Amino acid sequence: MLPETPAILQVRLAVRAWLELHRGDDVVVALSGGADSLALTAAAAAEADRVRALVVDHGLQDGSAAVAQQAADRAVQLGCASAEVLTVQVGTEGGLEAAARRARYDALDTARAGATVLLGHTLDDQAETVLLGLARGSGARSIWGMRDYDPPWGRPLLGTHAATTRAACVELGIEPHEDPHNDSPDFTRVRLRREVLPLLEDVLGGGVAAALARTADQLREDGAVLDAIAADLFDRIGHGSDLDIDAIIAEPAAVRRRVVRLWLLKGGAKALTDKHLRAVDDLMVRWRGQGGVAVGGGMPGSRLVTSRRHGKLTLTLEKGRAAN
Amino acid sequence: MLPETPAILQVRLAVRAWLELHRGDDVVVALSGGADSLALTAAAAAEADRVRALVVDHGLQDGSAAVAQQAADRAVQLGCASAEVLTVQVGTEGGLEAAARRARYDALDTARAGATVLLGHTLDDQAETVLLGLARGSGARSIWGMRDYDPPWGRPLLGTHAATTRAACVELGIEPHEDPHNDSPDFTRVRLRREVLPLLEDVLGGGVAAALARTADQLREDGAVLDAIAADLFDRIGHGSDLDIDAIIAEPAAVRRRVVRLWLLKGGAKALTDKHLRAVDDLMVRWRGQGGVAVGGGMPGSRLVTSRRHGKLTLTLEKGRAAN
Repeated sequence: MLPETPAILQVRLAVRAWLELHRGDDVVVALSGGADSLALTAAAAAEADRVRALVVDHGLQDGSAAVAQQAADRAVQLGCASAEVLTVQVGTEGGLEAAARRARYDALDTARAGATVLLGHTLDDQAETVLLGLARGSGARSIWGMRDYDPPWGRPLLGTHAATTRAACVELGIEPHEDPHNDSPDFTRVRLRREVLPLLEDVLGGGVAAALARTADQLREDGAVLDAIAADLFDRIGHGSDLDIDAIIAEPAAVRRRVVRLWLLKGGAKALTDKHLRAVDDLMVRWRGQGGVAVGGGMPGSRLVTSRRHGKLTLTLEKGRAAN
Repeated sequence: MLPETPAILQVRLAVRAWLELHRGDDVVVALSGGADSLALTAAAAAEADRVRALVVDHGLQDGSAAVAQQAADRAVQLGCASAEVLTVQVGTEGGLEAAARRARYDALDTARAGATVLLGHTLDDQAETVLLGLARGSGARSIWGMRDYDPPWGRPLLGTHAATTRAACVELGIEPHEDPHNDSPDFTRVRLRREVLPLLEDVLGGGVAAALARTADQLREDGAVLDAIAADLFDRIGHGSDLDIDAIIAEPAAVRRRVVRLWLLKGGAKALTDKHLRAVDDLMVRWRGQGGVAVGGGMPGSRLVTSRRHGKLTLTLEKGRAAN
């Protein structure tokens, strides 16, 4: 039985509300041993039946196996029905942080056995994600933040402050494991958390994390409507390999660019940026005979190029250096 | 004749592009004497015929009249056809910064005599505006930033860095007047400029101001489409003083909340926040017999309250303390 003091109660209520909204789902908990996932594990074990915990050992530090086993033992003490350590190999592609993340999600996805995996992301993580996306400027889509339900992932704590999960651990008398990476200023996200967000809170008088999360919620809702409008239009017009300019030229820019995006993705484009989409849009609305636009994608030794021909946009694979 | 070195050329090209897009407009330039508006004035005088400069003297510092007159003289030296000092009285309502801003815009609006007033807001100002809106979390609308054409105001330099306007002043051999307020850490905006944005640039590796401005452009386009959809729906259904829940309940949240916003504004609501709109939306989609929702507006000694009655939302003025 957990003591029902404010912090752990807040975490439990958040988990309870999530479980009620997704009642049919079996859940497992991803446990890193940090405060967020420990509090989540304790709350989930109290709120749901026969919760399994999954602990990923990235093998990146000496003694990581022991740390992972400790977390697994803790999960069982907290009331989980079982706890499993998943040992992964972390590559180097795209940087250590990205590679570790990929290996972790792959292992969780394999081990979940049909269940939804609850993740311990908090309101503070959400604020960092939004700020990161905003500052990268790769479009409205990049500041939607994380979803609380994005199968097979569930995030019951997106409305809960990290301070609350830390307080919950204190109340439970458990010591979270501090990831040594969290102290390295190399990680952009860590610097956002340690330096930028506290400064923003100070300058703007508090409530910034919640405000960022709220804005993200709203933008996600806005974006979903526009995406649906564009998908509907694309379904009606976009069946050939070319895109008929006349069919979309009269649409507002926000819809036109979304249709172009769907068409480019269907044609194999990757890592599309706002810059790509604007350059392709210019082929339609600011046509002055300009050359083709190279977009991300294609194959080694070739690049994917969008051009305007006879009132249509075409997508061709051209020999030459790979697209940026 | 202006020397066509890179910085002033960039400013001139920005002004030229703006003038081409808005060819029918007569323009005047608002000149504070700071680097942004000095560079703008120089560029406008070179790019347009018979430009008038308007200099506002806020009377907030000793010698402000002399500073304003100096700026006006400079405008004529830079090629303006005339320059006028507008002396204003700054009140205290809503804080000094807001009161000064209001007095300034009122004076410019009165003196412009039908012309569009060019303002010196730069890319950096835009980034601050977006960040300020984002962190306040009062909805997607709050991070749209400033428009480059928002009659009677025109902002040709929203894509130009403040560093460029400063460099242009150096090239022109003119010394900008530094507003003493810019050194006071009391002003949120100044702290965003001096502390938060440089830190963000450092953490995220540069290009943050441009990314924020780009994201704002896109969100403004997205928002315009959704606003139009909601306005259209409201036109069709919203002619009574009540709002028929059945007519909008099946719409996506992003549209539903926009219709509610239009309805509340029409009913006299003011300073609507995302929180108000969500609470009113809950009366429709999460109805469990909850009480009315007080929204901003009403009159002294009364408050404006939205309630659900017989499948409709109603808006009534209730006696009691004013709405928050």
